Amino acid sequence: MLEDKNQERTSLSSMGEFGLIDHLTKDIEINQPSTLKGIGDDAAVLDFKDKRTVISTDMLVEGVHFDLAYMPLKHLGYKAVVVNLSDICAMNAKPTQITVSIAVSNRFPLEALEELYSGIRHAAKVYDVDIVGGDTTSSQKGLIISITAIGEAEEADITYRVGATDTDLLVVSGDVGAAYMGLQVLDREKEVFKVNPNNQPDLEAYDYLIERQLKPEARKDVKELLKALEIQPTAMIDISDGLSSEILHLCKQSNVGCNLYEDKIPLDPQLINVCEEFNIDITTVALNGGEDYELLFTIKMEDFEKIKANPNFSIIGHMTQESEGAHLITRANTKIALKARGWNAINDEE
Amino acid sequence: MLEDKNQERTSLSSMGEFGLIDHLTKDIEINQPSTLKGIGDDAAVLDFKDKRTVISTDMLVEGVHFDLAYMPLKHLGYKAVVVNLSDICAMNAKPTQITVSIAVSNRFPLEALEELYSGIRHAAKVYDVDIVGGDTTSSQKGLIISITAIGEAEEADITYRVGATDTDLLVVSGDVGAAYMGLQVLDREKEVFKVNPNNQPDLEAYDYLIERQLKPEARKDVKELLKALEIQPTAMIDISDGLSSEILHLCKQSNVGCNLYEDKIPLDPQLINVCEEFNIDITTVALNGGEDYELLFTIKMEDFEKIKANPNFSIIGHMTQESEGAHLITRANTKIALKARGWNAINDEE
Repeated sequence: MLEDKNQERTSLSSMGEFGLIDHLTKDIEINQPSTLKGIGDDAAVLDFKDKRTVISTDMLVEGVHFDLAYMPLKHLGYKAVVVNLSDICAMNAKPTQITVSIAVSNRFPLEALEELYSGIRHAAKVYDVDIVGGDTTSSQKGLIISITAIGEAEEADITYRVGATDTDLLVVSGDVGAAYMGLQVLDREKEVFKVNPNNQPDLEAYDYLIERQLKPEARKDVKELLKALEIQPTAMIDISDGLSSEILHLCKQSNVGCNLYEDKIPLDPQLINVCEEFNIDITTVALNGGEDYELLFTIKMEDFEKIKANPNFSIIGHMTQESEGAHLITRANTKIALKARGWNAINDEE
Repeated sequence: MLEDKNQERTSLSSMGEFGLIDHLTKDIEINQPSTLKGIGDDAAVLDFKDKRTVISTDMLVEGVHFDLAYMPLKHLGYKAVVVNLSDICAMNAKPTQITVSIAVSNRFPLEALEELYSGIRHAAKVYDVDIVGGDTTSSQKGLIISITAIGEAEEADITYRVGATDTDLLVVSGDVGAAYMGLQVLDREKEVFKVNPNNQPDLEAYDYLIERQLKPEARKDVKELLKALEIQPTAMIDISDGLSSEILHLCKQSNVGCNLYEDKIPLDPQLINVCEEFNIDITTVALNGGEDYELLFTIKMEDFEKIKANPNFSIIGHMTQESEGAHLITRANTKIALKARGWNAINDEE
């Protein structure tokens, strides 16, 4: 998983700013009909015709959001795009363009930036979004990536965090908790590697968890899946900070409460095994893990029949009146208040 | 010009991520009719109706693009917005929204971020743009600001770098070179301050130059001025890297050459005095200084009468066939090839 250190190295200072930007962006293609002009002028020009424009931005900082010791640069580029597209998907909108700004210290050779950019370009291709602008500059220390994602939607389709009512059902796509445990596995391997650099880890039993951490995907398909089911979600958010935290966001902004059922939370079998191995409570991981980039949304009660058998979605609870608060109903049928604790809370508990 | 070091300091870690973002963004108002939803959801939602959307992004890094020793945080916030809006203006478009991402190390207290944000909010108010999104995170070292600016324009109004013909006139707004000399003055004061921290500098003779460096403005008015003159520019760019470099961009992208007349370059009287004092060649400063954020554009020859007497604009040359190249015609009537040298070149020459 570590970078090949024997590659050729070209110093960034030998390129010059314009040379570097030209070099990194020369293969970028434009595919979206809404992109009138991409990179190469003072600004990009987009035409969304009668649709609404949706915009989100995120910054990833080395040492804060990622560790290059176990995050290959190509994966990092891919993930940086995905986490931004996930925000557009969480508006029930379709991502169409991104801008990419990178600040990088001199310790990175050109080849490292090329790796990073190849991951960014790959994500743009997979998600069919155009790279329409950006900036590449030097940093005093480390690598910083700032991405702005742009999308489009019909006004009637756009789904905010506000909009859930106290009789709605709570639904999540995919499964949760795996990305967090992937990071735990990688952390353990990093410690092993420090002690014995020649150890070749066998990570097959953890492949799903590691992929969820290193190469997450944005649920661009959910908008289409819901459209096919003829369901208009009432409120929606993506799971970046953890299921518990995101449920509380929806409750707060929609002025409702919630009952979340522990036995309904979707968990991958590999996650179940690895939580046992690590002796970590799986519900704690599922509630607070974060970085799953699944979509959490509410639907009207009468849409229950349309969605209940769909393998892409799990109905995990229902909204309540605001005064009832937000609770987890455990397997033992006890009621525990939901808290937004995030990753640090899990670590403190260990 | 230095920050007051006696202010109260609140540590960022005591705020928590959500608390910090809420605190910094709580006073942000929405004024643009195209902003349907600003900060507070996964993404902002904009409605440009039948207009085109224009997008540009820029990253400013401490120690690379600015020095907090003489750049007050409020000015820095203001300038970070302005340099991005300038790119939108350089498309002959109207800036309407921005997103702001900030990475900051723990050495900055909350009050420092508030100063920075107050400058950002002030610029947003002056330029009538809405702050519709952003991200605030920690950095390993220093301060990094990434801003994405969004604007709107009728398709017919949008002006690219491509579009100049070999008979067009070359026009610049305002005057050039002052921002660079402002930085030279500040550099000199910084050295004096190091030797004698009690020295109170009298900077009145340099006020225009310093203001051009610390508080530049984007020429949002040029679009309206040209509309009133019934002039549609054929190509346009903003002056961030220096007049010479930007002329060469226009020439390259429009496939034309250029004759620039030394005696036509607009210079502020204060710049003339200070270049004498510093014993620096003023044309070198005007050509390579950069950071003026004036607009450089080409117009059709028949628009000459409409613009010639306008105090906002100077006709500084004319385009030629590409094969003739890009040249400066000096006061002594000699012809020198234009080179894109930028600031470093000026410093090397000293």
